[in-house]
Amino acid sequence: MLAEIITIGDEILIGQIVDTNSAYISKELDRVGVKVYQITSVQDNREHILNAFKDAKQHANLVIVTGGLGPTKDDITKQTFCDFFEDKLVENPDVVENIKELFRKYQLKLPLSANLLQAQIPSKATALMNYHGTAPGMWIEKDETVFVSLPGVPFEMKHLLMEEVLPRVVKKFNRPHIYHKTLLTYGLGETGIVERIEDWEDALPENISLAYLPSLGKVRLRLSSTGTDKQAITKAVDDQMDLLHNLLSDIAIGYEEEASMVEQIMKLLVAQNRSLSVAESCTGGRITSEITQYAGISSFFKGGVLPYQTSYKTKILGVPSELIEKHNVVSLPVAEAMAARCRLLFESDYAISTTGIAGPTKGDGDDEIGTVCIAIASPLGVISEKYQFGNDRFRVVEKATNKAFEMLRKEILKN
Amino acid sequence: MLAEIITIGDEILIGQIVDTNSAYISKELDRVGVKVYQITSVQDNREHILNAFKDAKQHANLVIVTGGLGPTKDDITKQTFCDFFEDKLVENPDVVENIKELFRKYQLKLPLSANLLQAQIPSKATALMNYHGTAPGMWIEKDETVFVSLPGVPFEMKHLLMEEVLPRVVKKFNRPHIYHKTLLTYGLGETGIVERIEDWEDALPENISLAYLPSLGKVRLRLSSTGTDKQAITKAVDDQMDLLHNLLSDIAIGYEEEASMVEQIMKLLVAQNRSLSVAESCTGGRITSEITQYAGISSFFKGGVLPYQTSYKTKILGVPSELIEKHNVVSLPVAEAMAARCRLLFESDYAISTTGIAGPTKGDGDDEIGTVCIAIASPLGVISEKYQFGNDRFRVVEKATNKAFEMLRKEILKN
Repeated sequence: MLAEIITIGDEILIGQIVDTNSAYISKELDRVGVKVYQITSVQDNREHILNAFKDAKQHANLVIVTGGLGPTKDDITKQTFCDFFEDKLVENPDVVENIKELFRKYQLKLPLSANLLQAQIPSKATALMNYHGTAPGMWIEKDETVFVSLPGVPFEMKHLLMEEVLPRVVKKFNRPHIYHKTLLTYGLGETGIVERIEDWEDALPENISLAYLPSLGKVRLRLSSTGTDKQAITKAVDDQMDLLHNLLSDIAIGYEEEASMVEQIMKLLVAQNRSLSVAESCTGGRITSEITQYAGISSFFKGGVLPYQTSYKTKILGVPSELIEKHNVVSLPVAEAMAARCRLLFESDYAISTTGIAGPTKGDGDDEIGTVCIAIASPLGVISEKYQFGNDRFRVVEKATNKAFEMLRKEILKN
Repeated sequence: MLAEIITIGDEILIGQIVDTNSAYISKELDRVGVKVYQITSVQDNREHILNAFKDAKQHANLVIVTGGLGPTKDDITKQTFCDFFEDKLVENPDVVENIKELFRKYQLKLPLSANLLQAQIPSKATALMNYHGTAPGMWIEKDETVFVSLPGVPFEMKHLLMEEVLPRVVKKFNRPHIYHKTLLTYGLGETGIVERIEDWEDALPENISLAYLPSLGKVRLRLSSTGTDKQAITKAVDDQMDLLHNLLSDIAIGYEEEASMVEQIMKLLVAQNRSLSVAESCTGGRITSEITQYAGISSFFKGGVLPYQTSYKTKILGVPSELIEKHNVVSLPVAEAMAARCRLLFESDYAISTTGIAGPTKGDGDDEIGTVCIAIASPLGVISEKYQFGNDRFRVVEKATNKAFEMLRKEILKN
């Protein structure tokens, strides 16, 4: 059972928008055991769309097409469907009713007649009712391949996919089960991991595959298996994951979707009834905004300060200016003083501090671009580390943020 | 001159990541006059990758491939390149040197020998030196089609594309100019716009195309033209855009910006030699992290405070507790006091403050979820506004951040 996704629109091919629809559809198909063979983005061009349909039909049982369903002249998906299926457009009375209802409900002041053109669909198609927009979805079968057409507006596409498409897919096709489990690791690169797990990887059963997903300062390791016996593949993957987790216990912090690093820290702090504050300089608000994106943080997060320019490290946090003069603003003693003073200011159990040079030009310090000192103050005292995170501003901030959370988590676990 | 982009990786096809590389590459190619014919995402599978290469070669002069270059067993792009080009891997001494230099610079504690395998590339390929990771880019030509292979890590891909690939593309290929201009409109749906501009659209010259890009509450209208005479196509599109703008003057709010809102504010502040500080509560670091992502902000950005829990609005900023008790923590007087006190604390010309309830549960205030008060303190005094941004935490923070920048920009322009 294979699927293909075709997204239509020049705006994708000139980079005006990022195609997020494909990832959403892929994830949902994967959940119900449908493997996506390929994702193809094509232009608003009849020949090109027809070619993509023909290619997709050769290897997929299900082809999901998004985009090109608007009421304007640049939208040609419906007419191209007619060409492909040797069909013609006819007005669908249910869609007419739905459009009229939408106009009543939202009191739209648009020309109704132009929007009623949206009710014309290929005669062989089943209309999939769109309760959030005027363009209906469509379901057409040809020689055992199902073509589904959905609007490109993500919100409308999602509703139609979940409420109309997936239930029909699940009913029509026999699908295996697909199971993935992804381990999150921090602090060791790909090749370091390869070396550690080589024997285990070589002995991995053939029906389980391993993928490495590296990003700044962390590597995700995904195990996947597909089969008809859900229990068997789940157990097989879980068992291998346990072995893998053991091999990497010092760098593994949990599984994807289960909880992000920040969620894990949240859970630990709430469980221990401990609180947190942040004094960030070179990370510029990134650490706090990562924390505050989660609901329910008020119970442990007290607040933060951003003494971006050096003098405010003294003025707001009370870091002695002599200390800064003696050691340099980017130094372990200054990071430690910032964390300790932040902890006192907010009367929190833990405090994170960062001071460094994100670049691309040198800041107030004398150090190399990319140098970052991070400190964690806790009831046990203050620890600190100095890092070199390269010369790209964005990456320095991202790596420093990830590293600060990694250090904080370790400190919390010491208690 | 046509290009195709092929992204390799099962993680894309199971929806584990959104493919943002393709949009970035498309946009940059479009800028230098290269039209992207198609974007294709394929699995980590030899046959599938070979098929995609074969298809792409048929219609594209330039094929850019990303992903599958890691040092682990699931990465097979290089070997597949060898199969496709009937070539074999050889060690490239420049890449060896580069990898050794990276190990020195970042003091990596990874197995060097495993990483040196990264220096093996097809003998017919030109290595594109990657100064940010161990996997080099590659440039291989076959029968007038150029294949370029880039790592999938966005940061490394971007550097290689901008510094190594585009200069070579510009030199090798004759390209036309491509010009787009996009009008932003708010408050009228697609069909309403169609009706208003019908006569103009029918009279649009054949070498100019119009695209409608609808999303919640707004429609973007893009005019595009391609030609060898840059001045001529630019003038033709600009002239038509003036006509279109006139037809839609009541709903048009401007053109899609080259510079972001923050960049516009930066430019204004630097030009006027003014400084900025931020006291954000419900936006939780988002405003400061939006500012600090740009280089060169040290010249005007003094710092910020995040008094997330109510008591720190008093303790750090000195907002009188009686004021909070009297008006509620989410109120215009408290927002105004926060901005004014922040401006004094940092001795800055401007200060932004936010206080509100991001949800999903109520915070310290009595207000509805989504209520946000924003204030701007300036040399002219303090202004403030109260908003209702709905009940989705992420969207509340996003809308409040955008609104704060919009208010700040207006205040700066008053001077």
